[in-house]
Amino acid sequence: MSILLYDTTLRDGAQREGISFSLGDKLKIAQRLDQLGVAYIEGGWPGSNPKDMAFFEHVSELKLKQALVSAFGSTRRADATAEEDANIQALIAANTPVVAVFGKSWDLHIHHVLGTTLEENLRMIADSVRYLKAQGREVVYDAEHFFDGYRSDPVYAMRTLAAAAEAGADVLVLCDTNGGTLPSTVARVVAEVRRATSTPLGIHAHNDGEMAVANSLVAVENGVTHVQGTINGYGERCGNANLCSIIPALMLKMGYNCISDEQLRTLTETARYVSELANLSLDPHLPYVGQSAFAHKGGMHVNALLKCEESYQHVDPALVGNRQRVVVSELSGKSNITYKAQEYGLELVGGTEQSRKLVQRIKELESRGFQFEGAEGSVELLIRRTQPGYEPPFELLDFHVLVRNGHDGNMAAEASVKVKVGDQVMHTAADGNGPVNALDAAVRKALLPFYPRLATVHLTDYKVRILDGEAGTAAQTRVLIESADEHRTWSTVGCSTNIIEASWQALADSLEYALLNDR
Amino acid sequence: MSILLYDTTLRDGAQREGISFSLGDKLKIAQRLDQLGVAYIEGGWPGSNPKDMAFFEHVSELKLKQALVSAFGSTRRADATAEEDANIQALIAANTPVVAVFGKSWDLHIHHVLGTTLEENLRMIADSVRYLKAQGREVVYDAEHFFDGYRSDPVYAMRTLAAAAEAGADVLVLCDTNGGTLPSTVARVVAEVRRATSTPLGIHAHNDGEMAVANSLVAVENGVTHVQGTINGYGERCGNANLCSIIPALMLKMGYNCISDEQLRTLTETARYVSELANLSLDPHLPYVGQSAFAHKGGMHVNALLKCEESYQHVDPALVGNRQRVVVSELSGKSNITYKAQEYGLELVGGTEQSRKLVQRIKELESRGFQFEGAEGSVELLIRRTQPGYEPPFELLDFHVLVRNGHDGNMAAEASVKVKVGDQVMHTAADGNGPVNALDAAVRKALLPFYPRLATVHLTDYKVRILDGEAGTAAQTRVLIESADEHRTWSTVGCSTNIIEASWQALADSLEYALLNDR
Repeated sequence: MSILLYDTTLRDGAQREGISFSLGDKLKIAQRLDQLGVAYIEGGWPGSNPKDMAFFEHVSELKLKQALVSAFGSTRRADATAEEDANIQALIAANTPVVAVFGKSWDLHIHHVLGTTLEENLRMIADSVRYLKAQGREVVYDAEHFFDGYRSDPVYAMRTLAAAAEAGADVLVLCDTNGGTLPSTVARVVAEVRRATSTPLGIHAHNDGEMAVANSLVAVENGVTHVQGTINGYGERCGNANLCSIIPALMLKMGYNCISDEQLRTLTETARYVSELANLSLDPHLPYVGQSAFAHKGGMHVNALLKCEESYQHVDPALVGNRQRVVVSELSGKSNITYKAQEYGLELVGGTEQSRKLVQRIKELESRGFQFEGAEGSVELLIRRTQPGYEPPFELLDFHVLVRNGHDGNMAAEASVKVKVGDQVMHTAADGNGPVNALDAAVRKALLPFYPRLATVHLTDYKVRILDGEAGTAAQTRVLIESADEHRTWSTVGCSTNIIEASWQALADSLEYALLNDR
Repeated sequence: MSILLYDTTLRDGAQREGISFSLGDKLKIAQRLDQLGVAYIEGGWPGSNPKDMAFFEHVSELKLKQALVSAFGSTRRADATAEEDANIQALIAANTPVVAVFGKSWDLHIHHVLGTTLEENLRMIADSVRYLKAQGREVVYDAEHFFDGYRSDPVYAMRTLAAAAEAGADVLVLCDTNGGTLPSTVARVVAEVRRATSTPLGIHAHNDGEMAVANSLVAVENGVTHVQGTINGYGERCGNANLCSIIPALMLKMGYNCISDEQLRTLTETARYVSELANLSLDPHLPYVGQSAFAHKGGMHVNALLKCEESYQHVDPALVGNRQRVVVSELSGKSNITYKAQEYGLELVGGTEQSRKLVQRIKELESRGFQFEGAEGSVELLIRRTQPGYEPPFELLDFHVLVRNGHDGNMAAEASVKVKVGDQVMHTAADGNGPVNALDAAVRKALLPFYPRLATVHLTDYKVRILDGEAGTAAQTRVLIESADEHRTWSTVGCSTNIIEASWQALADSLEYALLNDR
């Protein structure tokens, strides 16, 4: 049996407080969702804001391998035809193969929110679906508040579904919009709907009762074949059903097909990628994909795990691309360094003693706030600097950065630097958009006469994390920089209470790394 | 019908990576759990560490009103009598009215972890329970890995329960120790056990499948009357069943008694109190108790809420001591602004025209990279500044920030500022850990003579996000600042390509907000 996954991270997920995806973020996430193997990607609500419309304009350039893109919107207004309705027309203009249109199932909403009649609501549903079908779209009908509506008036709630089905909807999605329905209720209602219609059914659950995943799985057990959710459960209030928990449950526990085993092994990576673009740190306690999902603290558990891995793990973490961790363990130091050195094609001339010192150095830097997991360029430099005969391509002797805000309200930033290359000292200065940009410009200016190849090196990403935010503006600051030339990309790290210093460290590593194979 | 709540925040909850309660924390939490109204408080594992033993020595001094304290430990070892077993003797020494003892249900564990026989395991369970009963204890029998054991060998798993029941256990707790069981399986297995024994049953669920709350509720529907869990779902790996989600579901959705309505209204406060002592920020997206649990962002949702509160809320937030919030963002409309103004006790003198302009201004600022949903202080200021007669408490005329790195390798940051208050201009300077810290120090120095109350204002969090990171060091930078005085906390935002300017904007808003009610 196959289940169709319908991802709404870019639409309902973006409603989460704190998330604001740029157009570039949305396109990157769509690409990644396609690689993960979801059947549908809901890209946004074209009628609601210009950023979503821009997404639909650009998404076709991505050449997705298999996912179908869907545009979301509401049924027509009570006082217009589908042709006249701006929202419906925006759905058409989005030019997607699939359209999701939501209608009201709950009499309370029809009377008090829409302010229309039950009969007109049925016509709004039928007209909208029929119109979109006539335009050649695959139509997903989202029955908003279905479970609340069914509780309030089951006969009317069923009539709304019938209206959508008769108008040609391809799937009827039962939405637990307020997220408060119990699994046993979901099971009963889905089974009743299943008996009443032959149109495929879907589920769209919210997590207000902390039961969105359970409700989605229970719905599948009762005949639903289309499951909506978001990566990491992002969504308004308490979030949407978390596809990162649903997918492994469907595949590993319930025996359904939805993505390939190989795609399933990218789940943890996908979860981290999306959280990165959302600029949210991934909750380490998230099932399956969290850093602590397979982390063991209790001594008794660790002891049992050594005897038998499944003793305290419900699934093999490798199946979802995660790994088992033992907390408080100082193991795995030296072998990591040896492994890395091999990866960089370096022989550790100093042997075990050199790798022991490197482990110590990395641990010391990490305890000060550095993080090398995302900064392989800096790791390679750390190793190379302990190799005999390594000479750095330049040395920064001195710098000043000045930021001023004058009476005219304009900001200006200026940096002056003294850089030593061989036995020559260059003293120069440059302006910039901000202090780091000015410093970057000044250093490049000083180095270019010696290393013309730096002209091809540019920064592709610059990230700042405040560690220990409670220290306020005096907090430790970590800067991660990603750089690229025509051939490669690399990332470097810096950390200090002074953001300029942290940025300088990452910038210096980035430029030094660029010149590694240059001499 | 009543459900007995068994809280294990202090024992299983403390296994969460990152939690380390002091003895004082544990005693405070016990007191709070008693006030919340849970029936049992599991205080620790006296045999495993001295801190837990100290808790049992001191907990009797608390004079708890109604909760019974329980000590946790394992059944006797395979090669000892209960009298000889140090762990059992530690349970007795803890001197609690209740003892929870866990035994093995899963043949895999008995063979590969304990390394004993199935028959000896039954004797270990029976001996331990019988001995503890003979010492006058109420005995909770935790059937570890019961659902895995039942899947592997249902007949043997049932025999372990029978051994505990015949030895006098007061309740048989079915544990989903690895947290991977599906709700439908829990329902089926609990119903089968319910038919086979007359001893009261309990449930202890873990969240590895994101289904711990659902599994606990499904177990209750199938005859369980004792529910174990932790505040905020704290626990090893992905956590334990979250009592903060279970309690309201039992009371508000399923009609069970467990705590009083008045106690239920302290739930949000309790959740925050425990997170405070655990030194973890409370996940804002937690159901019922999270800050975003009843937060609304989409303009359509807010519009509907103004018409009818239950339209997008599954329960009334006041019942659990939480409140509805409206978030302002690019997705909002005039309703969000009207709602906010009411919340701040402001009448929009300019009516619809004023709120339309405010929405426009917010959208314009957000399109430039500001984000107001995490910055309610800045939103309030935006509104107040459009009210007639509003006068800002100070004005920044000019600033310089200098960062330098000398030959000695030491970084220094210095800021000079010109600030106008009324018709006086203050010109001063200060050093700092970094450029923003120096600016903060200089501005405070200038303002303190006029506004001595600023001495009580401190920054509690400082966050930086690089938007459009691909622009490298020239990228747009957004700064969010959280501040507090003795009474309140508030957050403000700034955005610019220059991180110093963005920080200044957020800092200026923060200080202006602090002075709002001061004049």
